[in-house]
Amino acid sequence: MRTAVLVEPTEFQLQDRERPEPGPDDVLVAIRDVGICGSDIHYYEHGRIGDYVVDEPLVLGHESAGEVVETGENVTGITPGNRVTLEPGVPCRRCPHCKRGDYHLCEDVVFMATPPHDGSFVEYVTWPADFAYELPETVSSIEGALCEPLSVGIHACRRGDVGAGDTVLVTGGGPIGLMIVEAARAAGATNVIVTDVVPGKLGFARERGVDLAVNVTETDLEAAINEYTDGLGADVVIEASGAPPSIRSTLDVVRRGGTVVLVGLASEATVPIDVLELIDNEIDVHGSFRYKNTYDVAIDLLTDGAVDVEGIVDFQLPLDAIDDAFQRAIDPDVVKGMITIGK
Amino acid sequence: MRTAVLVEPTEFQLQDRERPEPGPDDVLVAIRDVGICGSDIHYYEHGRIGDYVVDEPLVLGHESAGEVVETGENVTGITPGNRVTLEPGVPCRRCPHCKRGDYHLCEDVVFMATPPHDGSFVEYVTWPADFAYELPETVSSIEGALCEPLSVGIHACRRGDVGAGDTVLVTGGGPIGLMIVEAARAAGATNVIVTDVVPGKLGFARERGVDLAVNVTETDLEAAINEYTDGLGADVVIEASGAPPSIRSTLDVVRRGGTVVLVGLASEATVPIDVLELIDNEIDVHGSFRYKNTYDVAIDLLTDGAVDVEGIVDFQLPLDAIDDAFQRAIDPDVVKGMITIGK
Amino acid sequence: MRTAVLVEPTEFQLQDRERPEPGPDDVLVAIRDVGICGSDIHYYEHGRIGDYVVDEPLVLGHESAGEVVETGENVTGITPGNRVTLEPGVPCRRCPHCKRGDYHLCEDVVFMATPPHDGSFVEYVTWPADFAYELPETVSSIEGALCEPLSVGIHACRRGDVGAGDTVLVTGGGPIGLMIVEAARAAGATNVIVTDVVPGKLGFARERGVDLAVNVTETDLEAAINEYTDGLGADVVIEASGAPPSIRSTLDVVRRGGTVVLVGLASEATVPIDVLELIDNEIDVHGSFRYKNTYDVAIDLLTDGAVDVEGIVDFQLPLDAIDDAFQRAIDPDVVKGMITIGK
Amino acid sequence: MRTAVLVEPTEFQLQDRERPEPGPDDVLVAIRDVGICGSDIHYYEHGRIGDYVVDEPLVLGHESAGEVVETGENVTGITPGNRVTLEPGVPCRRCPHCKRGDYHLCEDVVFMATPPHDGSFVEYVTWPADFAYELPETVSSIEGALCEPLSVGIHACRRGDVGAGDTVLVTGGGPIGLMIVEAARAAGATNVIVTDVVPGKLGFARERGVDLAVNVTETDLEAAINEYTDGLGADVVIEASGAPPSIRSTLDVVRRGGTVVLVGLASEATVPIDVLELIDNEIDVHGSFRYKNTYDVAIDLLTDGAVDVEGIVDFQLPLDAIDDAFQRAIDPDVVKGMITIGK
Repeated sequence: MRTAVLVEPTEFQLQDRERPEPGPDDVLVAIRDVGICGSDIHYYEHGRIGDYVVDEPLVLGHESAGEVVETGENVTGITPGNRVTLEPGVPCRRCPHCKRGDYHLCEDVVFMATPPHDGSFVEYVTWPADFAYELPETVSSIEGALCEPLSVGIHACRRGDVGAGDTVLVTGGGPIGLMIVEAARAAGATNVIVTDVVPGKLGFARERGVDLAVNVTETDLEAAINEYTDGLGADVVIEASGAPPSIRSTLDVVRRGGTVVLVGLASEATVPIDVLELIDNEIDVHGSFRYKNTYDVAIDLLTDGAVDVEGIVDFQLPLDAIDDAFQRAIDPDVVKGMITIGK
Repeated sequence: MRTAVLVEPTEFQLQDRERPEPGPDDVLVAIRDVGICGSDIHYYEHGRIGDYVVDEPLVLGHESAGEVVETGENVTGITPGNRVTLEPGVPCRRCPHCKRGDYHLCEDVVFMATPPHDGSFVEYVTWPADFAYELPETVSSIEGALCEPLSVGIHACRRGDVGAGDTVLVTGGGPIGLMIVEAARAAGATNVIVTDVVPGKLGFARERGVDLAVNVTETDLEAAINEYTDGLGADVVIEASGAPPSIRSTLDVVRRGGTVVLVGLASEATVPIDVLELIDNEIDVHGSFRYKNTYDVAIDLLTDGAVDVEGIVDFQLPLDAIDDAFQRAIDPDVVKGMITIGK
Repeated sequence: MRTAVLVEPTEFQLQDRERPEPGPDDVLVAIRDVGICGSDIHYYEHGRIGDYVVDEPLVLGHESAGEVVETGENVTGITPGNRVTLEPGVPCRRCPHCKRGDYHLCEDVVFMATPPHDGSFVEYVTWPADFAYELPETVSSIEGALCEPLSVGIHACRRGDVGAGDTVLVTGGGPIGLMIVEAARAAGATNVIVTDVVPGKLGFARERGVDLAVNVTETDLEAAINEYTDGLGADVVIEASGAPPSIRSTLDVVRRGGTVVLVGLASEATVPIDVLELIDNEIDVHGSFRYKNTYDVAIDLLTDGAVDVEGIVDFQLPLDAIDDAFQRAIDPDVVKGMITIGK
Repeated sequence: MRTAVLVEPTEFQLQDRERPEPGPDDVLVAIRDVGICGSDIHYYEHGRIGDYVVDEPLVLGHESAGEVVETGENVTGITPGNRVTLEPGVPCRRCPHCKRGDYHLCEDVVFMATPPHDGSFVEYVTWPADFAYELPETVSSIEGALCEPLSVGIHACRRGDVGAGDTVLVTGGGPIGLMIVEAARAAGATNVIVTDVVPGKLGFARERGVDLAVNVTETDLEAAINEYTDGLGADVVIEASGAPPSIRSTLDVVRRGGTVVLVGLASEATVPIDVLELIDNEIDVHGSFRYKNTYDVAIDLLTDGAVDVEGIVDFQLPLDAIDDAFQRAIDPDVVKGMITIGK
């Protein structure tokens, strides 16, 4: 089967590998659509993300959907022909985190496209059946692939306990920020504000219906939020940019007793935080790491039309054009590129 | 000022009373719209609800909106000319319930139209300013009055922790049931099912977009829910009918580990409950009493268009026609009648 | 190996069975102490509990501790010679309940001594290593076996969100009731009240330091609780008797806004509940089924001395005397019997 | 009445002021014991804490207990002769924070000894009756005064959701740190670790029964915690020192998915935080500001013997000796000084 392998930074090689066999609890999936994530681009450009280093050739890709072609002997409830999206992290199922329901914090998780585990820029993948979620007819394969970034958004909103009537500020209008906006709306937020530094992203956010889009290079965010919220601040601030000034500013714009959720990975080792403000206003700051128990919800929201991912994907290219695809995806104006495999 | 007083069951008298003066923390409100609630009708017909007995002439009405005409000396943030909706229960502010934020459980709450406290079928009411919520221009006075039943719905959904992607069953398609449906949708429920025994109500619920409407006189509810949810059951069941068979059935149709919220006041003293099922499936059964901290949210949801109360009101009549209004409101096919005061 | 098999109601047969081999993720445990639970006695006397019927010979026993004698190839962190207690229910690890952390609600759980799964009145058991918890030196094997009923208590207190300063009423002073008392104290309850109808049990509860013990055949419980709590009611009521009158009374003695936890399996199909009271006082009623993620905590509490199970065990008998043991355990004055295997 | 007034930094003046009259909802309390808090000392030495500046003469003291001598006309449930402890912060009761139960976040709170509001180093104070809590006979007046710092501890533990079986690390062994230790134990923590840099404080903590006391000038905290917790980290870390290195270290020693509570006011404007670690380990960082709804619990814990404040008070001096008292209290080896008024 055709497999796109990152052999060293910025160099993909298309190899022919043997099609895997599903284990007794697995499904074999013919991959159809795979999104290009910021982390894929980071590995592609730098060969590493923090402590995760691409020492060996690695298959990238972890936002994937396709069609089941074979099932292991223990698999029930899913059959060849079913269209599915794949949750890319499979935990050990045995550690205290797993038993507690925090399987995303499992230290032994196998996560696609994270060294040393291969991802899904490939024709076939075997995967545990319980991490393959059937897509209804009305949800496209591309939407299925987008369940991954949407899951990041759903999880972030849960970490912030976003509820009906909340004012939510999302700092960063990239693909993750936009998915958080969608998830916040779906969870009942009635006022959603987005910040960014790129005018095009802010314009796109406005087109997608956010209530306020703030360019933080031009506008004082604290003043803007104070005006918008009559001096109260946002109920929940979800940081999706990773920019240290944005991380710092979260404490200035969240309401007293409110919640800050940190999603975007900081580009610096440490960020100076105003701890007095955090204590005096009794703020909750919650890290948000990947997701858990979100795929079913993501599919329900897509099926229901409660979230809208229309227009998020800028381009689709075949597996053979993966080099081109990554070159285009590097452009900061691109929201999301998609590799589409098979016909 | 003109005041509609229930002097004995089924008999209103229109009296002329002295217009009250606002205290230092109060606003004086010229009432504009007041909804007729099921409890108003119950007092009108029977002169009592449980232990609450109408011994003295009583002004009914507690779903009210109007315009501020005067403010007490300590009042800030609200001025004459503001349109407001009134939260009808004012607590003592000093007991442990109040301090804990459960002010709706305050034993000394003053609640409009609950003996011995008068309600709002009257031209003017003084009310604590912090229980008067300003309506934005886009929210009508009728919508303001409907913030009260909508609050019941919002609170019930909070008591059930309804969240994005949930399947919610609402038993009972009257005005409270319909408001719960709206609140559940706003909180992210993607599948909302309604039951009733009156075909007209089910048809109306269908028109309003519920995903499934079940006539429990014709259809086996457990079978219908099993089919709809692939045997899992509903995540949350909110009981709004008060009918004992409906209350009993909630445990059969909620999923393992799910939540039942009881809102509708049972028409019998006790209801036989399958306690083994409650334990074996580790179900949460939550009573839901009135509401707290919901008015701001109700207004936000209306402003945002996240809930739709269009079409809930069947008729509007002036204060002078309150007898007619109650006679019409008794009809089970009527969802909601509204008394409109002033011009 | 010696195995006590219930071949039909009230008849054990001691059989010689082949010692099992541990699978790759399992440990082989030489069982040392196994408590006799009320459910064991129920199967022994009646051959069934509700829908669970002993059709085939069954090994009872699920409160067990012993010593690891062999480990599967994948097992780490536990070695032969370690003393362990066994959590008796092993879930599928794959269903939504398991992933959510509610593994105790898994429909495919394998639970010891629940037909068709054998229990631990036997010399050797193989068991998944992650459901075997190492005991520190200071925790005896008998205490290890008692981690099971203590887990029921810990879980019930979690379901009631028992916290520091709470007043907790536990209805029923049998072994489960007593373990709930211990867990409630450990969670910070400062006032713990127990009810029963057997004077000996109430006396034993008093000896163990409960703040109030009420004989509900002699004393009006509501009056007693009102007096004790200045009319407020208990913050949390945990029902451990299963007696319908006790279940009914919980709503009369819990405070407004408080929580009732139902643990004891009702002896009747349905129990009449005062639903108006449940709604008017906005009470939470939570079913509590077995436990999850409690064994580590149970061991910590025992190690710390935060709970005291001293004196709970009335007698110890060897496996050969299992008939005698069950005959003695049937006596309502007996709190807990223990089968001790090996020397 | 005799009143100790801070007229400028380090200078108290004993003035004779008119005894106040209680309002209709107030009690007049003859103050008996008032603890000297770190904030009192800070105002005494520096004349300010952050934005709070002592511009006008100020009465310090907010950890107070005494005896009711007169009650306002609306007051029920408390009578002259009752011994009480006073919760020093009285909120507006009307803002959204108050209604939500977060009255400690009320922007209009009147807090004793915080400019411009006088405190309790004075013979008589009038105070709203619902913020005066009756002490049972077995709780001394000094213990009553200590309900204030104990409340800080109880609130911090709630903010960390400390529960039965938890491992809790408290950084800083001063009076607040020690009260957190007591509250954590009362909430079920089975392993409590304390850090400090002063050997005397660590020794005192050890005497008081903490499971581990770490001198962070000598020992690598991360290594010590890793060893103590088998590499898992603490479930909850409560930072009570305000030292920036200690604040930074919290993220290194809390377990994955654990909670950090920040109580100690940082001595620097900002502290560099490892945001990547916070996200990657999905940590909750919760500010903890004063307390709410804790006084009843503090009294219950003291009554029950669940917390032990014996030995916390180093000395008692009369109001006339307030200068001496503050001079002694400045000594870092002193845990807590107490002003005792009247005989």
